[in-house]
Amino acid sequence: MSAETPIRFGILGCAEIARKLSRAITLAPNATLYAVGSRSIDKAAGFAKANNFPPGAKIYGSYDAVLDDPDVDAVYVPLPTSLHIKWAVLAAQKKKHILLEKPVALNVAEFDKIVEACESHGVQLMDGTMWMHHPRTAKMWEFLSDTHRFGQLRNIHTCFTFAADPDFLKNDIRVKPDLDAHGALGDAGWYCIRAILWANNYELPKTVVALRNPIVNEAGVILSCGASLHWEDGKVGTFHCSFLSSLTMDIAAIGTKGTLHVSGFVIPHREKEASFSTASETGFDDLVTCWVPPPSDHIVTTDLPQEALMVTEFSRLVGIVKNGSKPEKKWPILSRKTQLVIDAVKASMDKGFELVHIE
Amino acid sequence: MSAETPIRFGILGCAEIARKLSRAITLAPNATLYAVGSRSIDKAAGFAKANNFPPGAKIYGSYDAVLDDPDVDAVYVPLPTSLHIKWAVLAAQKKKHILLEKPVALNVAEFDKIVEACESHGVQLMDGTMWMHHPRTAKMWEFLSDTHRFGQLRNIHTCFTFAADPDFLKNDIRVKPDLDAHGALGDAGWYCIRAILWANNYELPKTVVALRNPIVNEAGVILSCGASLHWEDGKVGTFHCSFLSSLTMDIAAIGTKGTLHVSGFVIPHREKEASFSTASETGFDDLVTCWVPPPSDHIVTTDLPQEALMVTEFSRLVGIVKNGSKPEKKWPILSRKTQLVIDAVKASMDKGFELVHIE
Repeated sequence: MSAETPIRFGILGCAEIARKLSRAITLAPNATLYAVGSRSIDKAAGFAKANNFPPGAKIYGSYDAVLDDPDVDAVYVPLPTSLHIKWAVLAAQKKKHILLEKPVALNVAEFDKIVEACESHGVQLMDGTMWMHHPRTAKMWEFLSDTHRFGQLRNIHTCFTFAADPDFLKNDIRVKPDLDAHGALGDAGWYCIRAILWANNYELPKTVVALRNPIVNEAGVILSCGASLHWEDGKVGTFHCSFLSSLTMDIAAIGTKGTLHVSGFVIPHREKEASFSTASETGFDDLVTCWVPPPSDHIVTTDLPQEALMVTEFSRLVGIVKNGSKPEKKWPILSRKTQLVIDAVKASMDKGFELVHIE
Repeated sequence: MSAETPIRFGILGCAEIARKLSRAITLAPNATLYAVGSRSIDKAAGFAKANNFPPGAKIYGSYDAVLDDPDVDAVYVPLPTSLHIKWAVLAAQKKKHILLEKPVALNVAEFDKIVEACESHGVQLMDGTMWMHHPRTAKMWEFLSDTHRFGQLRNIHTCFTFAADPDFLKNDIRVKPDLDAHGALGDAGWYCIRAILWANNYELPKTVVALRNPIVNEAGVILSCGASLHWEDGKVGTFHCSFLSSLTMDIAAIGTKGTLHVSGFVIPHREKEASFSTASETGFDDLVTCWVPPPSDHIVTTDLPQEALMVTEFSRLVGIVKNGSKPEKKWPILSRKTQLVIDAVKASMDKGFELVHIE
């Protein structure tokens, strides 16, 4: 099979988010929707129809059947977090490349088993942190990594909150201790932590302290929380994530020479154009009554949505592996670091908001 | 004397910031520059000339001489924080109304003595938190207090950082333990804390925890720090202030229904027009690929700069007192609450980042 043949995706389950990814797979030039499996074959058939699967796509009544199909190259796994270890390891064993939704696992120990399975079976692993693949992210990184314009990072604050409706707060998998045990921390907090790590060029913090008084539901699942992350040089990151307040997705990164602001970092306000703002070596006028120069706004356009760009990149890497190369290790390393910080925040909460060291 | 006579200001000292306030007094329709005192009469004369004091303005070689001038109605006190208690109390005893720079004192106990002196001598006291008087602040408060558009505040993050030059870091009064003992916390942090209290309609937090690893200079003065503030209902505020990073002045306030963002909250990017942005009951499109509706930007124009509006409001209140009414207590109450939180953050640092209760 040539590298130009589109990567054939199987989807495990019919999660809400799989609708967006199905569209992304359709839009990606090097990928194709090939199969979907659900515990209910009717549900799988309905999903394939509603999401414009091509004629001839396979409809399966189980996840196993997708994994057993020799023509499936890669699987997209949007299952509840507690099921990731089982299905990601099984998929790896069946030599399926894996696009895995976040949070990648319940903890790093579980994730390490997934990585081990992927490595021993030579399959590519990438998590579904879609904003990493938006061209705006690369543009913002150009600014953050520019020692003249931005200098060195000193402080970063990120947040991701949304106002879940009563049905979500009662029934969504993200508020169920047996499904997504980390609640808002694993869901919205994942993005906040990834953004902090990204702005730090993925250097892990030395210590983490959870902020006091997180809000949890009756079952103990986090609905709202935050933490501070500390590096040895005094650099500080803070984040806040919540299911209980108005939609907000911010990064404010402050360097020695410049500042980056973005609203809607996870999902841009508009699909085809995304904005951010920068200030660089700005100061005041003589009487300290205005900024000289004021911050400037930037707009980055994209023809393909960020999810399609993610699928495109993942499929490109899968194509390379199919041609005999080793899988790209960068993506699972980023997933692991993000999970490590989530684990540390949770540990700090469990220890009464004590300082937790990251080894 | 009628209420229409402009309030005659005396300025104690020739601090850098007094230049901006001199301009503000000149611009305010109900105030006039009347006197300036410095330990050096030459310096005072030079200051008066450079700052367009009117002909006949009094030039004094001491602060006492300003206070002894019976025609001075009010004094502006931009002296180092450690001198506030002495000169504000003396000014009150001489029946001078007082516009006092922030931080108002080294601690609440000192500030209470200033308030006591002002109350027993019937003079108006207001601190120099100029952004409170910008019409943008009133517009933003309209949004924050609108239960339909904003709902209830759940989280707020504020920051004020600027990149001080080597001379500032060596010689400025704000890095000297005997002058402005709280460094960046008392200076930039004052505004951050005030903004958090403002957004909470001045309800004090129940507890405060300083973030770990503040950066201090050789003399122990804070150059960079942060804290989290907690209310009983789970509401959280965080702030970061620093002399060591790029100019940034943010408020991000997240409510149950809406979000407010402002950059440049202390000093707007432009003197005559100031912006902020709001999102209200926003969500995603069906596939969660964009915001519906996206946030909206707002611009508030002002003919007078915020410092002139502050002087105008202060002078209005002084005029009312001169006509026989009691001083307005609102402003010293806000100063005291801000100072109380500064004291709590400092106490938390001193106790190894323990939780500190605010009574």
